Amino acid sequence: MSCPTHRRPEYRKINKDLFVLTYGALVAQLCKDYEKDEDVNKYLDKMGYGIGTRLVEDFLARSCVGRCHSYSEITDIIAQVAFKMYLGITPSVTCNNSSRNEFSLILDKNPLVEFVEELPAGRSSLCYCNLLCGIIRGALEMVHLAADVTFLQDRLKGDSVTEIGITFLKKPEEKKYRRKK
Amino acid sequence: MSCPTHRRPEYRKINKDLFVLTYGALVAQLCKDYEKDEDVNKYLDKMGYGIGTRLVEDFLARSCVGRCHSYSEITDIIAQVAFKMYLGITPSVTCNNSSRNEFSLILDKNPLVEFVEELPAGRSSLCYCNLLCGIIRGALEMVHLAADVTFLQDRLKGDSVTEIGITFLKKPEEKKYRRKK
Repeated sequence: MSCPTHRRPEYRKINKDLFVLTYGALVAQLCKDYEKDEDVNKYLDKMGYGIGTRLVEDFLARSCVGRCHSYSEITDIIAQVAFKMYLGITPSVTCNNSSRNEFSLILDKNPLVEFVEELPAGRSSLCYCNLLCGIIRGALEMVHLAADVTFLQDRLKGDSVTEIGITFLKKPEEKKYRRKK
Repeated sequence: MSCPTHRRPEYRKINKDLFVLTYGALVAQLCKDYEKDEDVNKYLDKMGYGIGTRLVEDFLARSCVGRCHSYSEITDIIAQVAFKMYLGITPSVTCNNSSRNEFSLILDKNPLVEFVEELPAGRSSLCYCNLLCGIIRGALEMVHLAADVTFLQDRLKGDSVTEIGITFLKKPEEKKYRRKK
């Protein structure tokens, strides 16, 4: 069976400005609801998690990616296929440790902050795009991969790049197995 | 000068599922924040208004639409150019009165509710997509056109179609002028 993505790629596309501005309204609403930046960040991550668990099935069906054999391969798929498909950008990937379970996605440009010049006043710890971390975490969990996903650098906070860190964790079964030994 | 839209139409496109699910998260958050459906509707409209006032400039630049000479022409532009550009759909337009200032946009399909089977429990008066009304209202206001924009029918409420009503209002200057006479 041919891949639906290749048949009608235009069908599911929309202009991103509407999304970017709607996302801005969502973040503004959460800032209104929660006084602490940490709570806004947590909530964005939680929302993203829910979105990721729903997006992943459709992503697997449409992207036609095959089985991955390493964390490195998975991270490349996230950067080159998923980010490209959903946000129209392709972050570069670096591996951050010798056991090859810690990676970074480096975003040269970030469409989500296109209309944002700076973080809102008094919101210096806000991870404005934390929804993305939650989405990645939720999607990975649905394919039985536990991961910590957090912003390591953020241009909105004055860093020179925006960097999302992904640390793949031991699977719960492995841990349990080891404890029992 | 050629129109940027025609030069790089792909540049600003993203997959719509991410937007649709993020919008769902926004509505869910507002339902959590506001007990009354009317307040959620009002807030979505208000948020949409803000988005519309920001989208319109970019829309005018990229769509290269010329000056409109009637409310009917404006409504056609909203349906055929703006909806197509931002949501990938083209509602049909009907005119609802003889003075030709009341129109309906009939949406056969509505991408915003793609993942929504029904309104949340106890939320029967929710106008789930009310952000759209606000966006239209905000965008029109920026080109000096006052309008009431509301949902007249909604498939999520059991209606056979989804219908957005646009009523163009007298301009404030006209009213003032008449009062002075």
